[in-house]
Amino acid sequence: MNNKVLIVGAGAIGAFYGALLAKVGADVAVVCRSDYELVKEHGFQINSHDLGSWQFTPSQVLKKASEYQGKADYVILCTKMIEGLDRISLIADAVNERSSIVFIQNGVDTEQELIDAFPHNEVVSGLAFICSNRLQPGVISHLAYGKLSLGNLPGGVSEKTRHLINLFQRSGIECIGMEDIITGRWIKCIWNAPFNPLSVLSGGLATEAILKNQEELVRSIMQEVFEIASATGHPLPEDIIETNIANTYTMPPYKTSMLLDFESNKAMETEVILGNTVRTAERHKVACPPLKTLYALMKLREMQIELVNSNGE
Amino acid sequence: MNNKVLIVGAGAIGAFYGALLAKVGADVAVVCRSDYELVKEHGFQINSHDLGSWQFTPSQVLKKASEYQGKADYVILCTKMIEGLDRISLIADAVNERSSIVFIQNGVDTEQELIDAFPHNEVVSGLAFICSNRLQPGVISHLAYGKLSLGNLPGGVSEKTRHLINLFQRSGIECIGMEDIITGRWIKCIWNAPFNPLSVLSGGLATEAILKNQEELVRSIMQEVFEIASATGHPLPEDIIETNIANTYTMPPYKTSMLLDFESNKAMETEVILGNTVRTAERHKVACPPLKTLYALMKLREMQIELVNSNGE
Repeated sequence: MNNKVLIVGAGAIGAFYGALLAKVGADVAVVCRSDYELVKEHGFQINSHDLGSWQFTPSQVLKKASEYQGKADYVILCTKMIEGLDRISLIADAVNERSSIVFIQNGVDTEQELIDAFPHNEVVSGLAFICSNRLQPGVISHLAYGKLSLGNLPGGVSEKTRHLINLFQRSGIECIGMEDIITGRWIKCIWNAPFNPLSVLSGGLATEAILKNQEELVRSIMQEVFEIASATGHPLPEDIIETNIANTYTMPPYKTSMLLDFESNKAMETEVILGNTVRTAERHKVACPPLKTLYALMKLREMQIELVNSNGE
Repeated sequence: MNNKVLIVGAGAIGAFYGALLAKVGADVAVVCRSDYELVKEHGFQINSHDLGSWQFTPSQVLKKASEYQGKADYVILCTKMIEGLDRISLIADAVNERSSIVFIQNGVDTEQELIDAFPHNEVVSGLAFICSNRLQPGVISHLAYGKLSLGNLPGGVSEKTRHLINLFQRSGIECIGMEDIITGRWIKCIWNAPFNPLSVLSGGLATEAILKNQEELVRSIMQEVFEIASATGHPLPEDIIETNIANTYTMPPYKTSMLLDFESNKAMETEVILGNTVRTAERHKVACPPLKTLYALMKLREMQIELVNSNGE
């Protein structure tokens, strides 16, 4: 049957994708810490610009994975990738011998700890291109996009992953299988690595202003990511930089996820987007001075935010 | 006699150095645009932690150099080095055939336009290590330091410059002649190039926090400036990076001038400190990716400030 799903981290992304699967008949439980009481009572209200509004009532609302009743076919991890997050302990108690472990999370070089921890399970990497917000407890607003790419690790797309892709497709969003999802992560990184930190370090510029004024810097960082990806054995399409630059010029001015986090005084995904990229470069002896500079600056920026927060200013 | 001095740009630095020269008997006039009326009426009140408080009454208070009466022995330019500043036209009308042109201003590679514009005059480069503020119109607070280094261009220290140095020394501050003042500017730059932009881009960290957390980045930028200075024929002392790092650790946590400007929403000296350094590197084919990245980021940061200011936020 393969229709038992556990979403771990039911925030703006997790609750939305869970709600889609529930809509097409899956049995979707959620681990939901911050809005637990309210969601247990009322479920989620989903308001999507493209797909309408509906109520999502999870089959189980849990504080932690160990409370899960049953045998999950898919354990889908959707938490933000912030420092100190222990992904293994968040899901381990709900993983059985046949669970697929799906992580829909940002960053590169984040696979190995899951593969190592669950050597007998399928591990599936997911990339979400989505703009959704949790406007208030239990209320998720899906503003735009939604596309999901899924692929097994280290590669391929299994039967069971195809089944999940079909469920998502039937629910109304675009969902594709990628034979080489690690390359997919680098493709996402080549855009994220420049625009996320530049949006924060510039003090809040949107993508268009960044590109118009410092296209050379953006290109030099994209070139570094291009070379790092190649060095890891995941070469990117030759025209990817040109395509990214051209596409970004045609996008409406866009606030990156890191900038949105920064503006709401939330933790940023600096380590998985920049730190892991720089560390991968060092492991493969690829020089990347501008990327390293951005990474160092983001660490300083975060340190300053911490100082301000701890002073209660 | 050589005691007629015109200070152009009588702000926190210009008024203070002018007041010192007046104290030891020089005839000191000032061009003072922002506080003109008040200074014309009351002169300057100088409050120095080290040297006490005194009133400085300029011999002439002028709105522009063309109003200057007499023949200035020294025309001392002390304005901030912001974009669009036309140094030549600020002073030209007060320069006579025997005036020394002294500029006490930040940045590297800023000499040539003065040398070109006044080929028959001595041009003297000045470096101030000083912490002084204009707290309110006409009131200058000298908080710490004060050391001034002066040297003729392209090199040497002339008799007439020695005379000015003597005046400053008698006034109570440290003042030295430097045979190679251009090297002196690079020595200042090796500290300014990392700490000024990092203090702003980090959102306001003081020097100590920057160094403790990103010493490697600071060192890599210092190394770039070291190589650029060498390429221009002004090699720096071999131990300068170690000395700078060690000294900065022993300084009290210090807010850079760029950070102070940033925090007061004033124009920053990005171009003369970073832009000129990067352009010098390019002219001499020295690669400097971290410096270029910092420069590009500062331009984005400035652009964002301009957007906010123009929106009246």
